Amino acid sequence: MKTSAPPSSQVLGEGRYLRLLDDGGWEYCTRHSVSGVVVLVALTPARELVLVEQYRPAVRRRCVELPAGLVGDVAGRESESLAAAAHRELAEETGFEAREMVELGAGPIAVGVTDEIVTFFEARGLARVGTGGGDDSEDITVHVVPVATVRGFLAEKLASGLHVDPKIYAGLYLVGGT
Amino acid sequence: MKTSAPPSSQVLGEGRYLRLLDDGGWEYCTRHSVSGVVVLVALTPARELVLVEQYRPAVRRRCVELPAGLVGDVAGRESESLAAAAHRELAEETGFEAREMVELGAGPIAVGVTDEIVTFFEARGLARVGTGGGDDSEDITVHVVPVATVRGFLAEKLASGLHVDPKIYAGLYLVGGT
Repeated sequence: MKTSAPPSSQVLGEGRYLRLLDDGGWEYCTRHSVSGVVVLVALTPARELVLVEQYRPAVRRRCVELPAGLVGDVAGRESESLAAAAHRELAEETGFEAREMVELGAGPIAVGVTDEIVTFFEARGLARVGTGGGDDSEDITVHVVPVATVRGFLAEKLASGLHVDPKIYAGLYLVGGT
Repeated sequence: MKTSAPPSSQVLGEGRYLRLLDDGGWEYCTRHSVSGVVVLVALTPARELVLVEQYRPAVRRRCVELPAGLVGDVAGRESESLAAAAHRELAEETGFEAREMVELGAGPIAVGVTDEIVTFFEARGLARVGTGGGDDSEDITVHVVPVATVRGFLAEKLASGLHVDPKIYAGLYLVGGT
């Protein structure tokens, strides 16, 4: 789903992961060496939503988010599918395995700043097989929250100074989880 | 709502609008000279959702999105409030004026790439006073779509090759517009 930079664009800066481009006066940021981003709406059989909480340097706070991850960013797995990455990220971050991943939709989430296209999956048939927590570079807390009480849970997190990623609301809309 | 870069961070690149930073190994992009980003969920008295469609260079496609805009990016208006920017952007982009802007929530929308915090507002008491279309640098098509048929409308747009910004789903969730 990722678009590569057009030949007309000028590189304004480059890091190990991100590149800043100017394409005819329009500036945006792109992530090299990935083929997509997956976001997981994972509901347990008891209709609990699986959320993750972690410190995010960009905003210098802990954030509550849907489980998510990059596709094709690991050496030797560059060609993995979106669905395969979805299964891998869900297990790594949350300890849940899904029987099935159903694509809900995809789109650019912050198109004024980045070319990133996120693909939402519904993770079905969940079973807990581990504790999650992320890979070696991550320190993730897992929350399993009844859908009926998600709004209150997130309000408490906001009240205690955390950020809440609005992609949670998008995911709940896509699965009809009001 | 915007966080400024911590003193420890290194500038990897800088354009007229965006800056690429490395903060202790975490890379992200920041927009200088703005104090926030507002996203508008604008429902007419007949329960139609106001959407905008425009070409987005980052993904080289037309995208369907909620009306949105930057806060404090215009010379002489650096200190405008989020709500004032919400009123201004809604009128500029869509030609609708709102009697009232109600804050629905705020959060980082793509926190792996950018420090951008978006604030969702519900625009209430809409009246059409112009044609919209954006400022001199924008070329925006306005869509006014009954909430009950939004899913079908977006599916048609996707089928014709446009992108759909998932913030639309987040906005609909926040106003209970399933």
